[in-house]
Amino acid sequence: MTETKDKGTPSLSRRSLLKAGLTSGVAAGVAGAAGAARAAGDPLITEIQDWNRYLGDGVDAAPYGLPSEFESEVVRRNVPWLTADAVASINFTPLHELDGIITPNGLCFERHHGGVAQIRPQDHRLMINGLVDTPLVFTMEDLKRFPRENHVYFLECAANGGMEWRGSQLNGCQFTHGMVHNVMYTGVKLKTLLEEAGVKTNGKWVLPEGADAAHMTRSIPMEKALDDCLVAWKMNGEALRAEQGYPLRLVVPGWEGNMWVKWLRRLEVGDQPWHHREETSKYTDLLETGKARRFTWVMDPKSVITSPSPQMPVSHGKGPMVISGLAWSGNGRITRVDVSLDGGRNWKTARIDGPSLSKSLHRFYLDIDWDGSEMLIQSRAMDEHGFYQPTKNELRAARGENSIYHNNGIQTWYVQKNGAVENVEVS
Amino acid sequence: MTETKDKGTPSLSRRSLLKAGLTSGVAAGVAGAAGAARAAGDPLITEIQDWNRYLGDGVDAAPYGLPSEFESEVVRRNVPWLTADAVASINFTPLHELDGIITPNGLCFERHHGGVAQIRPQDHRLMINGLVDTPLVFTMEDLKRFPRENHVYFLECAANGGMEWRGSQLNGCQFTHGMVHNVMYTGVKLKTLLEEAGVKTNGKWVLPEGADAAHMTRSIPMEKALDDCLVAWKMNGEALRAEQGYPLRLVVPGWEGNMWVKWLRRLEVGDQPWHHREETSKYTDLLETGKARRFTWVMDPKSVITSPSPQMPVSHGKGPMVISGLAWSGNGRITRVDVSLDGGRNWKTARIDGPSLSKSLHRFYLDIDWDGSEMLIQSRAMDEHGFYQPTKNELRAARGENSIYHNNGIQTWYVQKNGAVENVEVS
Repeated sequence: MTETKDKGTPSLSRRSLLKAGLTSGVAAGVAGAAGAARAAGDPLITEIQDWNRYLGDGVDAAPYGLPSEFESEVVRRNVPWLTADAVASINFTPLHELDGIITPNGLCFERHHGGVAQIRPQDHRLMINGLVDTPLVFTMEDLKRFPRENHVYFLECAANGGMEWRGSQLNGCQFTHGMVHNVMYTGVKLKTLLEEAGVKTNGKWVLPEGADAAHMTRSIPMEKALDDCLVAWKMNGEALRAEQGYPLRLVVPGWEGNMWVKWLRRLEVGDQPWHHREETSKYTDLLETGKARRFTWVMDPKSVITSPSPQMPVSHGKGPMVISGLAWSGNGRITRVDVSLDGGRNWKTARIDGPSLSKSLHRFYLDIDWDGSEMLIQSRAMDEHGFYQPTKNELRAARGENSIYHNNGIQTWYVQKNGAVENVEVS
Repeated sequence: MTETKDKGTPSLSRRSLLKAGLTSGVAAGVAGAAGAARAAGDPLITEIQDWNRYLGDGVDAAPYGLPSEFESEVVRRNVPWLTADAVASINFTPLHELDGIITPNGLCFERHHGGVAQIRPQDHRLMINGLVDTPLVFTMEDLKRFPRENHVYFLECAANGGMEWRGSQLNGCQFTHGMVHNVMYTGVKLKTLLEEAGVKTNGKWVLPEGADAAHMTRSIPMEKALDDCLVAWKMNGEALRAEQGYPLRLVVPGWEGNMWVKWLRRLEVGDQPWHHREETSKYTDLLETGKARRFTWVMDPKSVITSPSPQMPVSHGKGPMVISGLAWSGNGRITRVDVSLDGGRNWKTARIDGPSLSKSLHRFYLDIDWDGSEMLIQSRAMDEHGFYQPTKNELRAARGENSIYHNNGIQTWYVQKNGAVENVEVS
């Protein structure tokens, strides 16, 4: 993966963007002096302000704190035309407003198939049955007596970016890439619980089932169940949020989000997969031939530039500028992210910052000195096994245009001279 | 640090606990089968429940999500007798309810000297003045054009545990140890901003000043300012909370919390420390001799068992049990935590779990098989430089009993046969 060769002038598609050929005067990797004003009489620093003078609220204001009133636009959002009703619904993490790698619990995207179940933890039970020596039922308290672990993992819906298969549709990374979040889970290894019940020698698959009205079920091969899956009750230190499966969910690191069964009530052990609804008519990938790929569990390497992006335009003129984004892979760690400013002709290696954890979001930055000309910005992630992101056209060539799931194609943002940013494709 | 020798039978003090001598029948480090009920007709798993049948709320319920209604007791709390008024006040992180190492933003303890300033980010300015080549004023947008970094750091108030110098007072780790939190910060290095202004050769100290009515100021030596300090605008991915300094705070890794100036408006460079109020009459350590230690910046190695603890009693009988706690050091990573079940006579090395990051909280576990007898549980942390926690009496022998700050003594919890837990001391 040393390709930095010029692939020729890219061409744009969609909306009014029909021409290509960008001014290539952007120097990447060099950050000079930011545009700090000299201390020359700005009254906001030279004059006493109200907040410098008057006492503010004390600690009784918020036993459980909320964001500043000036951050009220930083929320999960949905796309009204995308969902038929308010219950079987989707919303999206505001990735463009976030930094670092942790997603605050209040901003983790939601995808429900039967709405949010409300379960008193005292009333919750987890059953293990099927091909086991001893069927078991656990209370929440029982589970908390087993040795537990903590891990940061991303969770991505298999349909993240699904609306973009046939071309750029949604103008913002919240909507094109926002069905992903990244939190620290606390729980017991699924392996520990299966060993407690004793898996029979012909037990080769596990079926987790949710306690909500949709009773989501997915077939998981025993090899994965015994590897790194967790039965978790905490996220980012506190109890799971109701919309994330309170009081108990399955964590299936690196694999598509619908397998991370929420409100987990049952684990059945069997000798073959069950072929339930959510792994046949849904969450399979229909190819051009009419055949479908099934059990496409792993979320392949992917990345997106979160700033600048359509919801986060460049608010300053030319000069120093931080290009920031996220990268992740269901295979393990991200080892490299390249960024192009000219639609994929030339690439610069970005700086990965913060903890690099397996099957976790990674934060990357490219610090540039922007000359104010148009840019076509892209990012391309590579993981520790050498897998990297394809272009959207490479993806379509392999899978056709019937797919909804597993779109990990390279995203392009068109940065205009005035700082506005648009979702486009180059070909 | 290989001490596992028997120091003799410990004796208890405070409340009705006057005798010592515990039954030492507790086998540490062995976790057997947890008390899972066999699947034998519990109607909560065998019968259809309402939440298995009826649709729940959809995604429009909460654009910014909140905890489950069943977690309403997991909140920051204060101690009414501790604070004279509601503005110059303190509350405490509910450590006993948390797991892993990330503190959710809504539960990070608060300590204000003038209440919570409310500042529109567009109106905020940061000035650098004093012994610099070019005084500068930055807007928030200016700051976001510099290369930025992400780090997880603990913040501990120097007075955390201050009420315990003269003996056990507060019955819960939320109150004895809850003036600490641990989040991922995003910001620019202080070094970068100081270099932008150009520090003169006689510039040896930095004075950060807050924009709130208390205008908190502390003297920071240039060596620390140029090492790992950050000027941060995000915590756990989203904007700082108002009570944590929105829109901008200083991060001084490993050093006492009052130096992490909130609502940061000014950085003055000088040739000597300023000796302001909060580093003379406050935040100094009065010794028995009448002399005071000053500039005691580093938070030394410390740990506490968060479960079981007075607010988190043992709710099950004998058998497998998870002892869980937190350890941290302002010097770097925690490399070892030992746990005693018998008041410091014998020690077992606990399992440190999850990311081990410098100047961050670490989570530790000891999985035991409890025989149901009384225990005096303690934890003792050691950092990568070999520093470790003293006993409370060792601390008093060195510093007397006038101190409020920097109590990193070993905490003892008395676990009774019925599972109740009390704050005690052993001597």
